[in-house]
Amino acid sequence: MSAQPSGSPGEAAYTVGIDFGTLSGRAVVVRVSDGAELGTAVHQYPHAVMDVTLAATGAALPPDWALQVAADYVDVLKTAVPQAVAAAGIDPTAVIGIGTDFTACTMVPVLSDGTPLHELPEFADRPHAYVKLWRHHAAQPHADRINALAAERGETWLPRYGGLISSEWEFAKGLQLLEEDPEIYARMDRWVEAADWIVWQLTGRYTRNACTAGYKGIYQDGQYPSSEFLAALNPGFTDFAQTKLAGQIIPLGASAGTLSAQASAWTGLPEGIAVSAGNVDAHVTAPAAGAVHPGQMVAIMGTSTCHIMPSEVRADVPGMCGVVDGGIVDGLYGYEAGQSGVGDIFAWYVDNQVPARYLQAAQAAGTSVHQYLTDLVAARPVGAHGLLALDWHSGNRSVLVDHELSGLVVGLTLGTRAEDVYRALVEATAFGTRRIVEAFTASGVPVTEFIAAGGLIKNRFLMQVYSDVLNMPISTIGSEQGPALGSAIHAAVAAGAYADVRAAAAAMGRVDRAVYTPDPADAAAYDRLYAEYLLLHDHFGRGGNDVMHRLRAIRREALTRDAAADAAGTMTEA
Amino acid sequence: MSAQPSGSPGEAAYTVGIDFGTLSGRAVVVRVSDGAELGTAVHQYPHAVMDVTLAATGAALPPDWALQVAADYVDVLKTAVPQAVAAAGIDPTAVIGIGTDFTACTMVPVLSDGTPLHELPEFADRPHAYVKLWRHHAAQPHADRINALAAERGETWLPRYGGLISSEWEFAKGLQLLEEDPEIYARMDRWVEAADWIVWQLTGRYTRNACTAGYKGIYQDGQYPSSEFLAALNPGFTDFAQTKLAGQIIPLGASAGTLSAQASAWTGLPEGIAVSAGNVDAHVTAPAAGAVHPGQMVAIMGTSTCHIMPSEVRADVPGMCGVVDGGIVDGLYGYEAGQSGVGDIFAWYVDNQVPARYLQAAQAAGTSVHQYLTDLVAARPVGAHGLLALDWHSGNRSVLVDHELSGLVVGLTLGTRAEDVYRALVEATAFGTRRIVEAFTASGVPVTEFIAAGGLIKNRFLMQVYSDVLNMPISTIGSEQGPALGSAIHAAVAAGAYADVRAAAAAMGRVDRAVYTPDPADAAAYDRLYAEYLLLHDHFGRGGNDVMHRLRAIRREALTRDAAADAAGTMTEA
Repeated sequence: MSAQPSGSPGEAAYTVGIDFGTLSGRAVVVRVSDGAELGTAVHQYPHAVMDVTLAATGAALPPDWALQVAADYVDVLKTAVPQAVAAAGIDPTAVIGIGTDFTACTMVPVLSDGTPLHELPEFADRPHAYVKLWRHHAAQPHADRINALAAERGETWLPRYGGLISSEWEFAKGLQLLEEDPEIYARMDRWVEAADWIVWQLTGRYTRNACTAGYKGIYQDGQYPSSEFLAALNPGFTDFAQTKLAGQIIPLGASAGTLSAQASAWTGLPEGIAVSAGNVDAHVTAPAAGAVHPGQMVAIMGTSTCHIMPSEVRADVPGMCGVVDGGIVDGLYGYEAGQSGVGDIFAWYVDNQVPARYLQAAQAAGTSVHQYLTDLVAARPVGAHGLLALDWHSGNRSVLVDHELSGLVVGLTLGTRAEDVYRALVEATAFGTRRIVEAFTASGVPVTEFIAAGGLIKNRFLMQVYSDVLNMPISTIGSEQGPALGSAIHAAVAAGAYADVRAAAAAMGRVDRAVYTPDPADAAAYDRLYAEYLLLHDHFGRGGNDVMHRLRAIRREALTRDAAADAAGTMTEA
Repeated sequence: MSAQPSGSPGEAAYTVGIDFGTLSGRAVVVRVSDGAELGTAVHQYPHAVMDVTLAATGAALPPDWALQVAADYVDVLKTAVPQAVAAAGIDPTAVIGIGTDFTACTMVPVLSDGTPLHELPEFADRPHAYVKLWRHHAAQPHADRINALAAERGETWLPRYGGLISSEWEFAKGLQLLEEDPEIYARMDRWVEAADWIVWQLTGRYTRNACTAGYKGIYQDGQYPSSEFLAALNPGFTDFAQTKLAGQIIPLGASAGTLSAQASAWTGLPEGIAVSAGNVDAHVTAPAAGAVHPGQMVAIMGTSTCHIMPSEVRADVPGMCGVVDGGIVDGLYGYEAGQSGVGDIFAWYVDNQVPARYLQAAQAAGTSVHQYLTDLVAARPVGAHGLLALDWHSGNRSVLVDHELSGLVVGLTLGTRAEDVYRALVEATAFGTRRIVEAFTASGVPVTEFIAAGGLIKNRFLMQVYSDVLNMPISTIGSEQGPALGSAIHAAVAAGAYADVRAAAAAMGRVDRAVYTPDPADAAAYDRLYAEYLLLHDHFGRGGNDVMHRLRAIRREALTRDAAADAAGTMTEA
């Protein structure tokens, strides 16, 4: 289907996509007819992430907290959007729609008019009044209780999340808020996804998007977890879904309203243009990569990897993060899975396990250490390093869903070199991806195309390893700003330029098909190593030897004893 | 028993001990009355180790070969001995005896007069005419055949070696020589341990010492493997023991003869003084550390660790290197076990897995990287790193006797730092030692005292870890040149200054008792980690998962394919 921009017949029409990341927001101006990216601008959040102290008071935050300031997001509207339009050199009146995506699950406690509670002077010193960023992990005890109770009661929604609700999500964070600061909880009219809060700022109207409601809000088959379930968690939590989560749920690609006068003033865009429903950075990447049909898996590969795939069938895939009706594109089930450590494992390795001579050689060659290590091993035959690794340095998100697991390397000899281990780690993440792909296929949700997006697609060696390990061609996204492009696609649909997200993705999405194809001999060689990976995977991940759990427990006990001894020492000294 | 030097009544008497190592020989002048070390000198072998090419021709050697030149050893007599005497500032005529120890099993093919075959001009270009150093590992296929046949025939000597004859030893190296260069084999009158060859050079008389005959020559209960066994290996090998190994076997501490006129000229020592029986570097360290009584285990801890212990009982300890009657001191059974990688694992780690900032910080602090890493973790509580390692980077010598095993690290997270893994490796070697100690104790050969010798005893943190892991006090040798001191002790016995090695060791040996004692809390904490070590040890070492073997096989196949492809490529280009 060709593009039929409806905004300005005869003239080019544009949309603006805005990607709200962990540390900054990025605006991109996109041509509606073909998805051309014409201008971009980035704005860093002034408060970044507050995970050590609260900026307003300097008070220390407990471990595993991660907060943000909502006004930082509005700053992106005020600065990055006009800058991107200026960079594109277009007339702002040619912009017909605006779309956004956000980190998730990032939660804002607000009054009924959308005012964040931390903007009330009386709550400026209360950590629970702030935005809880996705990687706020202090609600793990609450998540544990949710999971235990749901399993005990046999809640039908639990399998939709691979059997586990995350501490990152709406219910766990909400329960923590209720129990740790009941006054804030009581004052809070709504508990709002940042993805929806920013749309509220743009339109003046609160809507909940189907993606976060489903993946993060446990909204399944038209309902939230029952009030009986919530009451069993805490009587004060009984009406949590009915009250704090109340709001109209709208499908992805729908219009959430039109740009308000105030937001028009902030952005310099025309009042009244379409604003699309909120969305999540990973999920919105799918249409940007043209992956809107069943079986097209998009892997957004960066510090971690998120796997997103539409399908016509709903199945309980073991260890998936979630399956949500309309979670990626309206009308299809959207699946999500993930690997909690990928690029950050490579970064950790380079920072902590690579000796000086490699850095010097990389500098001399004018390349990065990652590239230098890659170049050293890229031409070596599969298996020549004699190593095998488990890629669980940040735990395992899918398919084991166990954050207490850890990394492992086997096969080390006195002949092992730094580049050998580096390659083994790259391969381990590829094996982890294959394990996920096989879990989907074995559950009746076949993966028919693998499309890579994210920062790691620049590493050609890594991409070839993935192709060989998966024994599948790998397509790559044709944009370096996939989420923002995806948001611009949704904006075009909301503006009526396309009939639906599928049509818009066909015209505006950018994917290079089968850029990498498997080498048959290397694929066969990797089959043998993958069989070994599975043995270790199941032995250490499924109870054959729970040493990883016990090492974590021993570590926690050791550190607790040590802290207690320190405290006792301090008291004695005092 | 006090010292009763018989050499020069009323005056001080001395002996010279010479330790022939892998790359150099060290002479030490020792006072007979109290073991005081008065002068030392080292001579590097001019030819060092030939493991890439043969020096005489420049021809490439096959993989796993390691050769030496016998004349290099004589150079030590000519240079290091007079230098040590000069350094000691003593009158050479006050020297009453000379003793030696050697690497083993290092083998010299000779004519009946002791002339090494590589000194014959017609054989100078023949690799098999040279000395085969202990770490010549090219006879593995021959060792495999010896082991398979011995197991099949139920040879009674096999359990004396923990069930496996090493490729390093006399029979495997001899069989390789026979089959790969029969002309050299035929011309060879004797196949001589370098430990005995050097004594032959000193005395003009060939004797075989009980230590190498037992540990390396499969001499048990007064006999070698039968000619039937040898014939079944290869008909040409039938009379190998009867002919090539023929020679009088003399006990440790005995006199092997007296210093010849020629050797007197080389060394500047008096003709006619006592020369003690040959010995092995590790085994001769026992009396230097005062460990001549049952249950006293000496661990010589360096790049690898050798465990030496006398006992009144003979038992088949699983995975030991060997048990030999009189193998350490005459009249007791001598046990040997070992860890094939210890200090070299730490060295490999520092060279290959420690980033630049540690080297810079160590330099700034004026300390070694090893010490700097140690200092970072020494005060941390046991288990705080959350890691566990298997110390098999060079395979496992005892108790698994499997050189195809490899190193493993588990528990890695993005918070793991280089010093954490370093400590885990130190602990892994301590767990490996505990496994060996427990194998002895469980076999009815209890270890009652643990005495550490070798270069690693300088690392106080490491020694404390060993004490905590073993939950035993650790005594340390009081000499930095334990083998040479041990040789000087044997020389004193051979010279008649003491009644036996026990008496000489009591007077001349140097040990500091219980320098390290276990911390009860740390010992208990290590008990838990050791239990985890055992689980991994048995899983990966006893067939639970043979992934380490398969990774080696995959590696070999990959490299072979690669080499074949290269060769094919070269031919195509040519």
